[in-house]
Amino acid sequence: MRQQLMDLRAVMAKHGVDYCLIPSNDFHGSEYLSDHFKCRKWVSGFTGSAGTLLVGADWAGLWTDGRYFLQAAQQLSGSGIELEKMGESGVPTLNEYLEKHLKAGQTLGFDGRVVSARMAESLRQIAEKCGASVACEDDLVGEIWTDRPALSAEPAFELSADVVGKSRAEKLMELRAALTREGADATVIASLMDVCWLMNLRGADVDCTPVMLSFAAVTAEEAVLFVNPAVLSETIRHNLEGDGVTIRAYEEVYDYVRSLPKGSSVMMNLNVVNSKLKVCVPEGVAILDRVDATTLPKACKNEKEVDNFRIAHIKDGAAVTKFMRWLKMNVGKTPMDEISVAEKLEAFRAEQPGYIGPSFSPIMGYGAHGAIVHYSATKASCATIEPRSFLLSDTGAHFIEGTTDITRTYALGELTDDEKRFYTLVLKGNLMLGNAQWKAGCTGANLDYLAREPLWRLEADYNHGTGHGVGYILSVHEGPQSIHWGRANSTPLEVGMITSNEPGFYLEGAFGVRLENLTVVKEVAANSYGRFLRFETLTMVPFDLDAIIPELLGEECCGILNAYHAKVRKTLAPYMTAEENAWLADATRPV
Amino acid sequence: MRQQLMDLRAVMAKHGVDYCLIPSNDFHGSEYLSDHFKCRKWVSGFTGSAGTLLVGADWAGLWTDGRYFLQAAQQLSGSGIELEKMGESGVPTLNEYLEKHLKAGQTLGFDGRVVSARMAESLRQIAEKCGASVACEDDLVGEIWTDRPALSAEPAFELSADVVGKSRAEKLMELRAALTREGADATVIASLMDVCWLMNLRGADVDCTPVMLSFAAVTAEEAVLFVNPAVLSETIRHNLEGDGVTIRAYEEVYDYVRSLPKGSSVMMNLNVVNSKLKVCVPEGVAILDRVDATTLPKACKNEKEVDNFRIAHIKDGAAVTKFMRWLKMNVGKTPMDEISVAEKLEAFRAEQPGYIGPSFSPIMGYGAHGAIVHYSATKASCATIEPRSFLLSDTGAHFIEGTTDITRTYALGELTDDEKRFYTLVLKGNLMLGNAQWKAGCTGANLDYLAREPLWRLEADYNHGTGHGVGYILSVHEGPQSIHWGRANSTPLEVGMITSNEPGFYLEGAFGVRLENLTVVKEVAANSYGRFLRFETLTMVPFDLDAIIPELLGEECCGILNAYHAKVRKTLAPYMTAEENAWLADATRPV
Repeated sequence: MRQQLMDLRAVMAKHGVDYCLIPSNDFHGSEYLSDHFKCRKWVSGFTGSAGTLLVGADWAGLWTDGRYFLQAAQQLSGSGIELEKMGESGVPTLNEYLEKHLKAGQTLGFDGRVVSARMAESLRQIAEKCGASVACEDDLVGEIWTDRPALSAEPAFELSADVVGKSRAEKLMELRAALTREGADATVIASLMDVCWLMNLRGADVDCTPVMLSFAAVTAEEAVLFVNPAVLSETIRHNLEGDGVTIRAYEEVYDYVRSLPKGSSVMMNLNVVNSKLKVCVPEGVAILDRVDATTLPKACKNEKEVDNFRIAHIKDGAAVTKFMRWLKMNVGKTPMDEISVAEKLEAFRAEQPGYIGPSFSPIMGYGAHGAIVHYSATKASCATIEPRSFLLSDTGAHFIEGTTDITRTYALGELTDDEKRFYTLVLKGNLMLGNAQWKAGCTGANLDYLAREPLWRLEADYNHGTGHGVGYILSVHEGPQSIHWGRANSTPLEVGMITSNEPGFYLEGAFGVRLENLTVVKEVAANSYGRFLRFETLTMVPFDLDAIIPELLGEECCGILNAYHAKVRKTLAPYMTAEENAWLADATRPV
Repeated sequence: MRQQLMDLRAVMAKHGVDYCLIPSNDFHGSEYLSDHFKCRKWVSGFTGSAGTLLVGADWAGLWTDGRYFLQAAQQLSGSGIELEKMGESGVPTLNEYLEKHLKAGQTLGFDGRVVSARMAESLRQIAEKCGASVACEDDLVGEIWTDRPALSAEPAFELSADVVGKSRAEKLMELRAALTREGADATVIASLMDVCWLMNLRGADVDCTPVMLSFAAVTAEEAVLFVNPAVLSETIRHNLEGDGVTIRAYEEVYDYVRSLPKGSSVMMNLNVVNSKLKVCVPEGVAILDRVDATTLPKACKNEKEVDNFRIAHIKDGAAVTKFMRWLKMNVGKTPMDEISVAEKLEAFRAEQPGYIGPSFSPIMGYGAHGAIVHYSATKASCATIEPRSFLLSDTGAHFIEGTTDITRTYALGELTDDEKRFYTLVLKGNLMLGNAQWKAGCTGANLDYLAREPLWRLEADYNHGTGHGVGYILSVHEGPQSIHWGRANSTPLEVGMITSNEPGFYLEGAFGVRLENLTVVKEVAANSYGRFLRFETLTMVPFDLDAIIPELLGEECCGILNAYHAKVRKTLAPYMTAEENAWLADATRPV
């Protein structure tokens, strides 16, 4: 049995806690966590990105999803923790497990700072039903994790209004107008991306997401940034104060909320805000549970941001295209594996001015690994790359001008008929969706058919969304819009939204194809029938013509592809050498 | 001032009612009304199908929508009733008007049997806010309408399980299973279509909808049909009793509801059930406000019903195709107008065996009248048909094998470029949607893009839904599914659902194009990726090739059109004369 598990049980006994819940979360509902917050990993030994640990006095279980069944089984072996395979038949959900096992008089404990207000409420209801109670004041793992990394405190940096198109003062003014519209006296924002967007600041406290650990609170009179003051330079502090922003210590946000005046109302997103923050709201203060008022303006990039995004995509396109050339020219000649080619691609990106770092961990899957949607090569799994089949490469970067996310599937030599056929159908879906034109008001659900139709017609499909929003040097996965036919998402695709277009196809044990461009929504007309919108594709990297069956792609899509390739060729030319351009001319030849 | 209005005010004063609300409704939330229920028309003189009258002591107003602004203005002229144009800026809604004008101590009266429980609740809330009260016991119009038509009591007829594929006993068994699943002890069904579907009965009490005035109540032990017993033949009565159905008088449904046992639960759809019925539910009986458990099984036609629908559409197709030939051969030679050609089409349908009657009032719009979406020719408006431009014909019928609804737009001579262009684009939308193949779970909102894309790409649109469900010798407009990108409708399109596919385009003052087929959903595959569905087009009538620009239609759609026309030609051949078949061969020639 794992020592950490035994230590945790000892401290649980001391606190009178019968079940301890340890989620994968920080104080902000973040997708990626900084090391301080990796409690679930530390206690269980399971390193996957998603999982929730529940520890009882004589039983412990870890809930995770299909991506991690294999890895979790290995890593939990001998730990004393059982694997609960989410979604498998007969496996209870965490809530179902608690409802069944929590006994009257028992206590369910969790750190209220790392559980969302929404989830804590459902846990409370379950406990109540069982006659049990909830204790959420203490950080039990913190009491036993002696060599725990401190809270990250990397220096923040400021983005000028020249870069992001809108000053902090303007954003604050618009946020205050939104509060008035919503009838709220104050808002407390916990999402790191929303705080950083509002403040025109970025940081380095979270892997792949250049944000700083912080909260913001805004009323008609004041704007408060709760942050470790050590991460702010003199200049930034001066600039913040110049815009009327008060700086207070990171942990003082709880006191701030406790002091909200009675009779006032505060807007907070209970899906994001942690339970402790909600508990701090005094009686007599109304909570308006809404999506943060910053979320939609953050998603709808302004003209300057879109212009910058285009620049970021040219830089990224040059880097990825150079990589593509290198890969296809060297495969079978130079030794390479999944990890080394990922490093090679990162090196090409790092050559570009304004490169900040990756926007997520690269997915570089060769052959059958391409069929694992969230594959991440480890030393143990890392495949040698040979001159046949596909390499699926899903990677992204932050540049000072914006964030990229691109998937290409490269033909490294001879392909099977199925590989070519499905590559062509996935490309067809990508091109059809990218070429959509629709009436304002449509959501991603209205358009997803276009991406899936070539597969649906063959009675096949892919088991993931077709598109997610992308932040501006923030999270590469950003709401509120998405493209998926079946998920309830009522957010219309609006001007300035950056969204991925990434259909795929996966044949387990054989190969995977995914082709992803980022797009921005543009208005093409406004008349008595309505406003009409379409996507502009930002990504500037060829699709691999070696994998295409032009007759299957069809005339319309060949035309769309040729126009895209002509644009890629012309756009990238100034950033390529003569040899690279010669290669590019061939790689983008009309089909 | 209209006498009826004065009489109503007198009886209002007698009853102490300050405002009297008179909607367009029967006791069942029906779309079409039998004559007994046309109170709003009788008091106001306005004959349109939709409108709500509010009468105060010294003011009266009628709310109706854009379809009827012109007609209502004419018909209300001099009546003492003001026209409230719904949706026009500055025009209050009925609820807004009441909120503003209802005074403390006043009484708002309406007949609780013709206002849905949902609407009555909102009226009650408004009254409460104003310090006013509601009186819903009395039928004030009934007290003054001396020559009011009696409640319709047309003979009912029975559909055997051979015809509709499922016996009454099976339907009752399935309904009881649904009640158990929903945790309901009883259900009361007010929708005439749902009652008739459940009982395998039809009637003739409502224009265009072959239903009988009735309610049903079902528990585990009993099934009660509330109906005027005079409409039931001995045989039907015998058959009903044989299936354990008790027959009680129509108006006894209220007593039945009053006697529901305390502690039990009753399922009823408060959007449909009238306010009086809801008021009758005793305290201590829980109301489960849900869509009737009959609605989804009614929508998903069984194999026998679908087979019959195919037969109905062959009969209808033969009739409409004969009409099309007659129209195109005789225009400019034989005098014809909008009303006479509608009669001609009905005559062709009446020649077919098993014809019951029209499924709605025909829309027969020549030239600019085609641009009026809900046009109904009157003696005053009736246009002479000349050998040019379009005739838009949206009509339907009930046959014993099912219900049809078809729109064709006929080229009657030379067309303008715009007429041809938009005809072709609307046809393209119809063919693309009709050819969709999707994964089970998709709703109409996921597919509507296909129908609208050709117009959206030209920054144009049509302002109505693309598809509605169709009942089996019931209402031609049947839920729960629909096809519209922007309307919240979470009902997936499922096997056996009959849905219209009717894109259009309207240029005010010039012309209208609408092309409508009925479709049925079929399963084409079920595998590890899911179930895959597509439409089978039921309607069997050529599209007018004289209006098509093949290059604009495109290769794919020309292929779909040619395959459809080949099927129409082959299917209708046995029902046509040699001359008609010769004409049909040309009308369906490949393009």
